Order: sequence, then structure tokens, then C-alpha cells
Amino acid sequence: MDWIDETINGVRYGLEGRVLYCEKSAYQKITIIESKKYGRGLLLDDCWMTLEMQEKFYNECLIHPALCSAKNIDKILIIGGGDGGSAKECLLYKGVKQVDMVEIDQRVIELSKKYLPSLGGKAWEDPRLRTLITDGVSWVESIKERTYDVIIIDGSDPSGPAKGLFNKSFFQCCKRILNTNGLFVTQSESPESFREIHIDMILTLRDVFKYADPIYSSVPMYPSGWWSWTFASAKSPDYKYPIKSRVKEIEKEKDFYIWSPRWQEGAFNTIPASIERELLNG
Amino acid sequence: MDWIDETINGVRYGLEGRVLYCEKSAYQKITIIESKKYGRGLLLDDCWMTLEMQEKFYNECLIHPALCSAKNIDKILIIGGGDGGSAKECLLYKGVKQVDMVEIDQRVIELSKKYLPSLGGKAWEDPRLRTLITDGVSWVESIKERTYDVIIIDGSDPSGPAKGLFNKSFFQCCKRILNTNGLFVTQSESPESFREIHIDMILTLRDVFKYADPIYSSVPMYPSGWWSWTFASAKSPDYKYPIKSRVKEIEKEKDFYIWSPRWQEGAFNTIPASIERELLNG
Repeated sequence: MDWIDETINGVRYGLEGRVLYCEKSAYQKITIIESKKYGRGLLLDDCWMTLEMQEKFYNECLIHPALCSAKNIDKILIIGGGDGGSAKECLLYKGVKQVDMVEIDQRVIELSKKYLPSLGGKAWEDPRLRTLITDGVSWVESIKERTYDVIIIDGSDPSGPAKGLFNKSFFQCCKRILNTNGLFVTQSESPESFREIHIDMILTLRDVFKYADPIYSSVPMYPSGWWSWTFASAKSPDYKYPIKSRVKEIEKEKDFYIWSPRWQEGAFNTIPASIERELLNG
Repeated sequence: MDWIDETINGVRYGLEGRVLYCEKSAYQKITIIESKKYGRGLLLDDCWMTLEMQEKFYNECLIHPALCSAKNIDKILIIGGGDGGSAKECLLYKGVKQVDMVEIDQRVIELSKKYLPSLGGKAWEDPRLRTLITDGVSWVESIKERTYDVIIIDGSDPSGPAKGLFNKSFFQCCKRILNTNGLFVTQSESPESFREIHIDMILTLRDVFKYADPIYSSVPMYPSGWWSWTFASAKSPDYKYPIKSRVKEIEKEKDFYIWSPRWQEGAFNTIPASIERELLNG
């Protein structure tokens, strides 16, 4: 047994375990590990992306507030998400007719299927899933307006290949290809470890969409363990309010670990006082 | 520079820095460190207790929901809290007339005053603070009934000298020495790393007091980074609702980092779905 750590600015989060596989793809270093406590995991450029037994902390917060609250959920776009976890959660909804997963790095998908099959689970065989190996930025630029009901940004930090998923022109393209009632959600980094990026993302999304609000929860493996996801809409902040019939349906499909309608209401209110002040002065 | 880690069940959280001082007191190993990112810090038996630049994550959640919501705040009891951080937050309230800090280990207080003076700040010179070097369990057994308005348990994990602060007979003593309108609060461990202890504490507190509810937030240095505090009362769950005049007063005293009345309302609702289910089946 050895330690596998992500180290950032004098802080590290490590798991006891061993490296199963490592390669440099065209875009990034991909590492697959086996940990003692949380099962198998994936690191990109030495940053924790997912773990078999921690993915629920992240994916439940990204997907269910969006899919329970969006007016329509027929056509979903996921940018990133090559491990399959976010697609699997989306496909639990019978109302979802198509999920386009746009992943830049084919090797992330191939290695996730091979080493972390539980992440994507049945999603990989679901005929509603279209896997598109291309750059998310070009994809949203090329698609015709009002194509999707929900857009989900499931990318890594803004230092590697996901850099283009954090700026105003990208958000504007997303707004353009979203239906009028559409809902946008992105992981929006740690309010502790990436405070400036986090605040800037919310302000930019409010500027582009009009309505944008973050939720906060825990993802132990990510820097500081404290994470956020930001929901945006051009029409109304309805992303705060799950639709009762949708909730009833999805609660039959799985026992949630984190998410519930009550949790969702709470998570929109647990904005730290200091971030709320900065957004007001924004 | 070196790494100082807390390691538990195949997981570690580490900070780059160096050890300034280390001793074995009569009760535990006490380590004072200087970290690159979060300033100075204290470990007891190799577990992170506090850091100059992370104490707000913990102390704001422990103290302000309690002191803004309690009917009366004249007489406060803190069990533990030898670093001074929780006492300092209590003494920000002008209405507080007396804080009894019962700390078992005098060396924790002495070393905190010497190496971490910002933690306790002005509290150490405040005439309202009484420091009592004795065992918290004996203290609550010996005090006459209905003595305190608020009881705050600011202890370490149930493995070391804080072991006695986690069981039913201790909670019963606390209830006995609390005024009829009194409010009890305890740190209640991580819902991830100490899930069973966490759930057991809430159920036991409900059994003893009648009303008990947890809040959840982030303390990056603690196991999993996800932490909880549980509030209890024999009379009503009024701990959920801050008193407006109290909020107005305290918001003049400091710029909060985490806590706000809105945050407090949210934090009582962000109970993870799986824990809510287990409590119902309790």
C-alpha cells in the first residue's frame, strides 16, 4: 500500500492504495487507482476526479436539483462527464429522451468503462446516450439555437483541457442553444480553495443568464472538501423548486444518499455570509 | 518544510509546514504547528483540532446558531474549548454575563495562549470568563440543577479524554443543570467519517431532551471535511430560529465568514437523505 495524494497550495488529500494504471493521453495524465477506503478512482493531471464510493457526493448535487426542477428534460447536453456518472443519473429519468455527452478525451471514457464500470453502469448501453468525442467549446458554438432543455457542465478545473468552460463567451453559447425554459448547471469549484473563480463564475452567469444561484455541499476528495454547483436560467430561478411529480418518480428509482427536496432547499440557503456579501458588492 | 497529516482509516489530510512544539501532557499528545496556508495550528493525539485560519469554519457553526436562538444567554457553560475560540465568540454578546470554561487539560490552555493567542483573543482577559481545570463529566454531575442558560460541548473525538462527553448519562446531567428554556449544543462529528457515532448522538439527544437537530457544514481540516453540530432543547426546536434583535446586535460586532440567519435556516435543512431515513427508522 502507498499513498495517492492531490496536493495544492500546501494542502493534500490522500488515500491509501495503489496505482492500477497510468498514461498520458493527448490531453492529460490519466491515473486509475485502487484505494482501501473508497474503491477505485480516477485522477486527471494528479487531481481527484471521482471515486467509486464518493461519486454520489458529487453527481447527486449536479444532476438531481437540475432534473427535478427543469420544466422540460427531453434533450440533455453534458459537457465532460467521461466517467459516465452524470449520464447514469440523468438516464434514471424516464422522461429523458436523449443525452449528448461531449467529452474531449476518448481515453477517459475507455478507461472509465474498463476500470470503473459501476460509474456509468447501464448508461453505456442505453440507446438514449450519444457519446461525442470533441471539444465542448466547439460543440456549443456549432449547434443551432434552442436545441437542449438542460445543459450540464461536468468538467475539471480551469487549468487543463476544461479551461474554456469557465468564461463568458462559453456561457453565452450555452444560453443560445438552450430552450427558452431551459436550465443550465455547472460545477462551480470550491468556495474555499478556488474562492475567486467561484465568485466570478456566479457573477458572470448572472450577467449572461439573469438568474444564477449556487448550492454547497461536501465532496471529501476535492480541494477543501467543500464544493459548489451553480444553476442558471434566463427565465426564472425555478431551479430552486423541485417539481413534485418528478420527485415522486425519481425517488422510486433510487435511494438517495444526499439529495432530497428538503436538502435542495437547504443547499440554496447555505451560502456563506462572506460570499453573499461579495456577490452583493459584485 | 514538511507535511503534518492526520491519518484515519486510509485517508489523510495534510498541511505543509513544521512542528513548533510537541509534548505529552497528563492527558494527551499536544502538537503546535506552523502551516504555509492556514497559519498556526493545534493537534491533539495527532488529530487536527484548530488552525488560526480555519477556526471560523468550526466556531461560527457551534456558537452563533445557539447564542442567536437561545431565550436567555446570561450564563454559559463550555466543556472543552481550551484553545479559547468558542469562548471568544460567546463573549462577543453583550448579554452574556458569565462563561464557565471547563477544560480538563491545563496545558491546552497554556499552549494555546502562548502559540495561538488570536484564537482566544480578548476572551482571556475578559472578567466574564471563568476557567475551570477539571473533568467536564464530574463538573456537570456536581453542579446544581437549572444553573446554565446555554451548554456548549466543544470537545475532541470520543477516543481520547473526551470519551465521556458522548453518552446518555452525560447528556442527562447536562439537561438537569440547564434552565427550563435552556439550549444545548455539541459538535457531533462527521456524517461521513463517523457516521454511526453521529446518528447515535442525535437519537440519544432526542431521547434525553425531546428535541434535537443537526446542522451540517465544512471544516476542511477535520476527517472528510464535512462536519456537524447538534442542538437540543427540552422545550421546543426554537434553536432553528434566530432572534432578530440578537442577530442585529451581533452583526455589528463582526463580519461573519459562514454564519447568517439565512445560512442557519439552510444548514438545518441540508440533512443528507440517507441520514434522514436512518433517523426516522432510529
